[in-house]
Amino acid sequence: MYRPEIKVLDCTIRDGGLINKHKFDMDLVRSVYQAVNASGVDYCELGYRLSKKIFSPDEFGKWKFCDEDDIKKAIHGIDKKTKLSTMVDVGRVHPEEVPDKRKSVVDMMRVATYVKDADKAVELAKRFHDKGYETTINVMAISTALLPDLQEALDAIKEAPVKAVYIVDSFGALYSEQVHFLVKQYAEYLKPKGIEVGAHFHNHQQLGFANTIESIRKGANYLDATIYGIGRAAGNCPLELLLAFLKNPKFNLEPIIEAIENKFLPLRQKIEWGYIIPYMITGILNQHPREAMALRASPDKDKFTAFYRRLVDDIEIT
Amino acid sequence: MYRPEIKVLDCTIRDGGLINKHKFDMDLVRSVYQAVNASGVDYCELGYRLSKKIFSPDEFGKWKFCDEDDIKKAIHGIDKKTKLSTMVDVGRVHPEEVPDKRKSVVDMMRVATYVKDADKAVELAKRFHDKGYETTINVMAISTALLPDLQEALDAIKEAPVKAVYIVDSFGALYSEQVHFLVKQYAEYLKPKGIEVGAHFHNHQQLGFANTIESIRKGANYLDATIYGIGRAAGNCPLELLLAFLKNPKFNLEPIIEAIENKFLPLRQKIEWGYIIPYMITGILNQHPREAMALRASPDKDKFTAFYRRLVDDIEIT
Repeated sequence: MYRPEIKVLDCTIRDGGLINKHKFDMDLVRSVYQAVNASGVDYCELGYRLSKKIFSPDEFGKWKFCDEDDIKKAIHGIDKKTKLSTMVDVGRVHPEEVPDKRKSVVDMMRVATYVKDADKAVELAKRFHDKGYETTINVMAISTALLPDLQEALDAIKEAPVKAVYIVDSFGALYSEQVHFLVKQYAEYLKPKGIEVGAHFHNHQQLGFANTIESIRKGANYLDATIYGIGRAAGNCPLELLLAFLKNPKFNLEPIIEAIENKFLPLRQKIEWGYIIPYMITGILNQHPREAMALRASPDKDKFTAFYRRLVDDIEIT
Repeated sequence: MYRPEIKVLDCTIRDGGLINKHKFDMDLVRSVYQAVNASGVDYCELGYRLSKKIFSPDEFGKWKFCDEDDIKKAIHGIDKKTKLSTMVDVGRVHPEEVPDKRKSVVDMMRVATYVKDADKAVELAKRFHDKGYETTINVMAISTALLPDLQEALDAIKEAPVKAVYIVDSFGALYSEQVHFLVKQYAEYLKPKGIEVGAHFHNHQQLGFANTIESIRKGANYLDATIYGIGRAAGNCPLELLLAFLKNPKFNLEPIIEAIENKFLPLRQKIEWGYIIPYMITGILNQHPREAMALRASPDKDKFTAFYRRLVDDIEIT
């Protein structure tokens, strides 16, 4: 698949930060940016840019806030080709705390939202656009959105000054035919406005990469991935697989393989992500992985059968 | 996806045996059959039925030979609902050593072949059919078959007395569009003869399950999978994911979750399979995993970058 319009965004540090409260050390973040930059990937997302008035820096690491100085340190001395991105959540950011683009090395601000908060996301995207940033809107937990609600959200979002609007399968619940359906829905609203469809798939059912392929086949051009698939719960579409699939000559796989060997194999010994049965179970049940995350943090982490029974019983609420 | 015609075959012990020279202890094999039988899966494949004149029982475990007595022990006392299958490779079996069906608890004989040996496979399938068995032909390494060769093979195979002919992606190299193409090719030759298309996908690129879904969407009705994805190199389509995807009411996921918790988590500590970068590399390069298997058995097992460079250089032979 070679399509020049395709943009790949590495969100290793941002999505990976959801496992360790964004406490990556500077050396790792620099290594990731260096590898991603050398691989020819279009964007690298280094974290969230949330407000310290809402979250305490005593509890969370620096990549939850992405102070301008920290981002500058992360890329210092590297010949920057890959653009930088940071993410904000609706309701967790004070836009006035984010500097104007001309005072920032960050190129893009991505706004994460649930379907119900689409109008708030549009407002935020406008604010960041007016500050000079490229923007996107990322619609989370899409596998639980009712169609009329999604259509209403897309109808609002299509008026936003954004580059792309993402399908975010936060629960890792979608199969290919649902991906095809959603890309078509998105494109109907967005393509006439020149806005691209984006893809962010989680890996609870080992479909993060496969669903990304299916979204590409149906026209998605903004693609999220992470090195070695790191990310919350089962993680994300692995960047190394995506680059090998894409034939765009600008991409180079080797720096990513090297980063896995040197940084992500050791990291995987310290923090956990990937195909683990409790995440598979929340995925097939189309549920938030929080119950599975709680299980994995408990002494019963490997009690899969009892967990399955509990969740199957839980949903019988009539 | 609920399609009554779909048959699922568990090949946990057969494909898993390629990692440990078929040396599973009887307790594990009984547990697998018990779980698969309770889950409503249609077939369970307990190993190869190869000749002891060709392979030494000193080197290989009993599931490379599947003596009738061993198979009987494996299912003794269990109320057999799931049919039993064993596999043979072209050139590695003496069919006269295999008892007639009326003297065997095995129901199906599957013949594994490369494209070039299709005519030999047809002959073998006829022999086993005449002995009273259900039969299939499984065409390995399909990602390296040239189209005219594949068509010639299918033209011969369509005359065989088989239930199904499998697409076997031994190298884990295929993407969805190639799967669609192959299912269509197979169906063109086989459907008019009442023969089903079968699917056996390896997981080198985390596409074992996804490609199985894609083959189902295009009409494949015989599906291979293994518990927790066990199998050579990166392993196979995980049975637990496939059963959750299939809506056929006859399937029950819980016994498989239980087998993973009690048997396959501990087993994974002893033998290795799954998404491991050297297997991903042979997958993207459409190569046999043997180089990656050799690497993983060496002290350089985690030297991914050097391995990648070596394989990329190796294929520049002009």
